[in-house]
Amino acid sequence: MQKTFLVIGGDLRQIYAAGKLSEKFNVYITGFDKNIIIPENIKNIDRITDITQRADYLLLPTPISSDNINLNAPFCKNTIPINSVISCLKEKGIIFGGKINPETKTLFENSGFWVYDYLDREEFSVMNAVPTAEGAVQIALEELPTTIYHSEILITGWGRIAKILAHMLTSLGATVTVCARKCYDLTWAEIQKCKTIPLSDLHKSSHHFDMIFNTIPAMILDKQFLQNLNSDCLIIDLASKPGGVDFSFASSLGIKSIWALGLPGKSAPVSSGHIVAETITNILRERGEPNE
Amino acid sequence: MQKTFLVIGGDLRQIYAAGKLSEKFNVYITGFDKNIIIPENIKNIDRITDITQRADYLLLPTPISSDNINLNAPFCKNTIPINSVISCLKEKGIIFGGKINPETKTLFENSGFWVYDYLDREEFSVMNAVPTAEGAVQIALEELPTTIYHSEILITGWGRIAKILAHMLTSLGATVTVCARKCYDLTWAEIQKCKTIPLSDLHKSSHHFDMIFNTIPAMILDKQFLQNLNSDCLIIDLASKPGGVDFSFASSLGIKSIWALGLPGKSAPVSSGHIVAETITNILRERGEPNE
Amino acid sequence: MQKTFLVIGGDLRQIYAAGKLSEKFNVYITGFDKNIIIPENIKNIDRITDITQRADYLLLPTPISSDNINLNAPFCKNTIPINSVISCLKEKGIIFGGKINPETKTLFENSGFWVYDYLDREEFSVMNAVPTAEGAVQIALEELPTTIYHSEILITGWGRIAKILAHMLTSLGATVTVCARKCYDLTWAEIQKCKTIPLSDLHKSSHHFDMIFNTIPAMILDKQFLQNLNSDCLIIDLASKPGGVDFSFASSLGIKSIWALGLPGKSAPVSSGHIVAETITNILRERGEPNE
Amino acid sequence: MQKTFLVIGGDLRQIYAAGKLSEKFNVYITGFDKNIIIPENIKNIDRITDITQRADYLLLPTPISSDNINLNAPFCKNTIPINSVISCLKEKGIIFGGKINPETKTLFENSGFWVYDYLDREEFSVMNAVPTAEGAVQIALEELPTTIYHSEILITGWGRIAKILAHMLTSLGATVTVCARKCYDLTWAEIQKCKTIPLSDLHKSSHHFDMIFNTIPAMILDKQFLQNLNSDCLIIDLASKPGGVDFSFASSLGIKSIWALGLPGKSAPVSSGHIVAETITNILRERGEPNE
Repeated sequence: MQKTFLVIGGDLRQIYAAGKLSEKFNVYITGFDKNIIIPENIKNIDRITDITQRADYLLLPTPISSDNINLNAPFCKNTIPINSVISCLKEKGIIFGGKINPETKTLFENSGFWVYDYLDREEFSVMNAVPTAEGAVQIALEELPTTIYHSEILITGWGRIAKILAHMLTSLGATVTVCARKCYDLTWAEIQKCKTIPLSDLHKSSHHFDMIFNTIPAMILDKQFLQNLNSDCLIIDLASKPGGVDFSFASSLGIKSIWALGLPGKSAPVSSGHIVAETITNILRERGEPNE
Repeated sequence: MQKTFLVIGGDLRQIYAAGKLSEKFNVYITGFDKNIIIPENIKNIDRITDITQRADYLLLPTPISSDNINLNAPFCKNTIPINSVISCLKEKGIIFGGKINPETKTLFENSGFWVYDYLDREEFSVMNAVPTAEGAVQIALEELPTTIYHSEILITGWGRIAKILAHMLTSLGATVTVCARKCYDLTWAEIQKCKTIPLSDLHKSSHHFDMIFNTIPAMILDKQFLQNLNSDCLIIDLASKPGGVDFSFASSLGIKSIWALGLPGKSAPVSSGHIVAETITNILRERGEPNE
Repeated sequence: MQKTFLVIGGDLRQIYAAGKLSEKFNVYITGFDKNIIIPENIKNIDRITDITQRADYLLLPTPISSDNINLNAPFCKNTIPINSVISCLKEKGIIFGGKINPETKTLFENSGFWVYDYLDREEFSVMNAVPTAEGAVQIALEELPTTIYHSEILITGWGRIAKILAHMLTSLGATVTVCARKCYDLTWAEIQKCKTIPLSDLHKSSHHFDMIFNTIPAMILDKQFLQNLNSDCLIIDLASKPGGVDFSFASSLGIKSIWALGLPGKSAPVSSGHIVAETITNILRERGEPNE
Repeated sequence: MQKTFLVIGGDLRQIYAAGKLSEKFNVYITGFDKNIIIPENIKNIDRITDITQRADYLLLPTPISSDNINLNAPFCKNTIPINSVISCLKEKGIIFGGKINPETKTLFENSGFWVYDYLDREEFSVMNAVPTAEGAVQIALEELPTTIYHSEILITGWGRIAKILAHMLTSLGATVTVCARKCYDLTWAEIQKCKTIPLSDLHKSSHHFDMIFNTIPAMILDKQFLQNLNSDCLIIDLASKPGGVDFSFASSLGIKSIWALGLPGKSAPVSSGHIVAETITNILRERGEPNE
């Protein structure tokens, strides 16, 4: 017999994740008001209290909550308390979600459930780096008055997004310079046909770039750096949390800078949803869960 | 002594072309009202009648005219009659422009000038295919709800734009299918890691693509083809003049289709201007004109 | 009913072509002595005179003959006169071969046969450029004491082989410079991430390269050029007929140069045979020949 | 004043490393008999006992010794005892070498020297993966009767060599399948345009490949796997130490397999030497050593 998935709340990505999961599972969804179109093979449930049968698996949103009380459910008029989901799941059921805070995790585990935060899965981060990098390329195409071809672009950092973005931009004909701290990161960047600058040399001299993508979540593009930069350079900050650009100082120099957050959901909501579904499928396979 | 270039009318691309030419020539420009910013090293002349010294070379817009009477000069309040430029050029001077109609060409030649239409230069078309293809990729990134990565894309035709666009899209991870008539075009497409469909087989079966780029200026994506296509496919027509898509029928089937014209100027005006300047430089070098 | 193919003479590529054709046709082969292994689904006929049934199609070798009297059949002790094949073919049958001289063509046509030289097919030349380029890369890997990665390589010409070879070498991390005559060839080379030198500038200055591949069948790498070249440069001439290198002068300067001919057959005999078969299949499809 | 480097023993790579180091340092070399050509700017010293001035840095071979008594010095008639190098180095000098065994390391450190094994440096391994991968491509080109283009190749593992090799082979047009254990390694391989097989599925079914490159130092290509493989597949084992192929069983099935070790030194001795020199330069820069 097919296992049952209950998808609760979240944004459009949840619906696409549900759609993908419905290829293998019996999928119910709740937390979306009537004007949101739900694919036919997914059963849309008005209110969480209408659920009569407990599901095998729950899919909660990313982040699951912003106040630690109610689930994140922007497309739902009603609030959905976090603890209301407990009664929707079978004994020893599994809960999936993104950015699950420790208290909630403990709450669920004490109820006898397994809890998986897919943001902790490295393959999720890798897959998600693709729509992020595409979103960054889109911004470049929209903002630059020149072609990416033959442009001079700096990428700071050499993590997942930087690697994929560097490949995309060099493929499109840009000259990409990578700035990173570790010797072997620079060696890898060179093998991927990039020029390199050790991070320790970044502030030593003046630079001329058409565009800079920062991926390091620390103040790298600071006053000293910006002062030595051409003012028609465009800066895109892809780093989360503290960010890596002194935006107000950049602005005072006439340097345009954009803090681009949440790109995967914006640039490719369908793919973002599928990536969630694929990560969940990997977790279930590793657990040896039968999927029929 | 530096030769003199006079740039007359046209859109923003003319200013960027003038800027590039000013690296080697003494450049005057006219046909731009005061609110348009002209780089400092270019002399902005209010009205063509203010010109006192004849130039060595003239750069006219693309297309040079829409009515065969006045120059195309969208940023100028006054009209600039085509025949008014004759008195601005030295004997045996050279006139450059895009899409020069035969009557105008004869008029200029009869006045003793050399006339070059840079649209006739193959390297101009090749260089221009890059901003066109980048503009096409931008539309794909903006319109597709999925990533280009792992999407299924059809390109009809195997000309300059198709070749460059196919390379960009496969580099970004799309599966690209090329449809063309000639055997060896398909062979080349295969070597460039594309799947292929002979044009004669395109209408035989039903197809499923996330996106289609048409580059053939003939009715290829007609009723028969569209009827056998998934309705969530996005069609972008890059072909000029007659176009290659039955837009109204596509619309009746709920298939979104966009006729994307003039992409180089829109997506990368600076690069487009530079391409004009570079083509002119090539012509002058081939003529053995001294550039100092 | 399956059509019948008779394959006569030639080198190992003929056997691989026969093998590929046997997927669709009833294939007989002759011109190979007993110690040559022939795939099981191909009927090996000892002598051409043993053939009792006329075939629908004949496949002759490349080049079909070196003396215009007997077929080229290096693996056969007996000679096979060209005119002996006439009695092996049905009325209005089709003869395929490579480098068919005009007299032989006339002889066959006068016997009522269709004659196709697959060397005239552009897709054949394109497909064949792949094993040629791979053979060139192999020589580079064997001869260079450095990696291809980070090496400086010159390619003269921008035909089929040059384009594919340039792509392979830049992918492997070499810096490739392309030297060609036409403006737009240089533009294409640039788009493919190569540096460029106009042919007219090649002799003006001295050069330093780790390796040079010549693809132009004219004396390009002459005394003047070689004198201005570093002596540890390796030269590989891929051009047929007159070749493009002053080999004896290069040798006198201590410059190693290799004339690499017939690479497809040497580096990838199986693929070379398949390319012949695929070209024939294309010709038959264009003629509308049924293949069952 | 320029610092002094003394290079002792080893194979040809040592000479190329010495040559590269001589661009920045005063370099002496010993351990090479007279018939070996040493570049002019390097001082060749006949016997280690002839050294009168102590060097700032020592470069020993890779591996430094095979018997823990004498240095590895295949081009030298005399033996060079390991402990004889101590008197050649200034106080607090630095010793570089490859695969330095713990006893020797202790011996040197007790003499007051800093000791660096460059095999421990990740950027060394990354850079060295390039000549290894090129050597692997060379074997493929030499051994395969088909082109790499359109061939089906399996790579086991997703370490440095596998990543670079996969990129090279897909660039050359092969269809590459990557087999690895970790989910996110497979995700990366997919992003690099490879097909993937989880390691746990490798033995479940039969496979057809033109070639297999093993990079996992464990018995992966065992009897069970080989029994389900086409017998005309070529296997190249790039894994060190235990290797990953049951060679004798493969041989009994008629499957050709090659254990390719020491590729960097064989395929590109000059580059291999330069990589050693570059790694040493990185170490010195990180230590803040002045190089003039």
